[in-house]
Amino acid sequence: MHGEPAVAVLRLGHRPGRDDRMTTHVGLTARALGADRAIFAGGSQAAETVRDITDRFGGPFEAEVTDSPKAVLRNWDGRIAHLTMYGERVQDVEDEIRATRDDDGESLLIVVGAEKVSFDVYEAADWNVGVTNQPHSEVAGLAVFLDRLFEGRELDREWEDADQEVVPMETGKKVVDPDGEEQ
Amino acid sequence: MHGEPAVAVLRLGHRPGRDDRMTTHVGLTARALGADRAIFAGGSQAAETVRDITDRFGGPFEAEVTDSPKAVLRNWDGRIAHLTMYGERVQDVEDEIRATRDDDGESLLIVVGAEKVSFDVYEAADWNVGVTNQPHSEVAGLAVFLDRLFEGRELDREWEDADQEVVPMETGKKVVDPDGEEQ
Repeated sequence: MHGEPAVAVLRLGHRPGRDDRMTTHVGLTARALGADRAIFAGGSQAAETVRDITDRFGGPFEAEVTDSPKAVLRNWDGRIAHLTMYGERVQDVEDEIRATRDDDGESLLIVVGAEKVSFDVYEAADWNVGVTNQPHSEVAGLAVFLDRLFEGRELDREWEDADQEVVPMETGKKVVDPDGEEQ
Repeated sequence: MHGEPAVAVLRLGHRPGRDDRMTTHVGLTARALGADRAIFAGGSQAAETVRDITDRFGGPFEAEVTDSPKAVLRNWDGRIAHLTMYGERVQDVEDEIRATRDDDGESLLIVVGAEKVSFDVYEAADWNVGVTNQPHSEVAGLAVFLDRLFEGRELDREWEDADQEVVPMETGKKVVDPDGEEQ
């Protein structure tokens, strides 16, 4: 989060149309919960949406598109955690994963699939991780994983170069510009 | 989680077609991460999908459909937390919310909107809660909120009456039936 070693999220298996909103939510969740960048397969409009949100609400955060997610996996310089309901329990492996980043300085690629993920992804991953071994949502799995990886520190991050900022309120909505003027 | 006081998730503002998968993911996330039931607005197929998953992977978990989400809010006997990017920071209010359930025995309704949520929902809520004050995903917000509400205990829950169970694996997929036979 915010500097080295980087945490990136790779979204695999996007099916245009069907997965558009889920893929966008993967990207926005990656940004909001402390990752440094998201990498989307070609055919998704998600990178554009995420860049637009970053322009308005701040960064730093990078959204990239790749034609070869497999090459991203193959060439990743660091560790790889693949989120899957078939994997080891997050509560059992999170400390080890966190240590490779916090103590050993290794960057982390978090892989998030859509429906079927091919077996070579399971083999390329240093960890296959289940946020529960129940079928639910790749967005939910990513969110819990990031919150645990960063131990909640991502919730306190500062955002740079935002055009607008939401001010937390008991009731109602308050949005201010960089000078603190209500919008 | 698993008994009184109950935690339910109410999904507001479902737009048929556009929101189908997000609404289903809200329901599956509620089930996987420790809520006792989910309540969907009419027009959604999500309840059916969530019941099917509960039949196969276990419960207890209830999925209901309502024609009047507003009546659910109005008649709720317990506390209400509405998840919104405009709300108070989850890290500031989670202890208070948890205490009303764990110490005071009050049930909790977690309200999850789609796009615009009308102002009376903000007023009906005991807490408007932001899982970050950034735009991201209602599924991600719900996931982090539940994991924090239950302090991770939801990850260790046992499932009853499952036809199949996923066995956590370092690599690969293993699914067994109730007798432990591989499927």
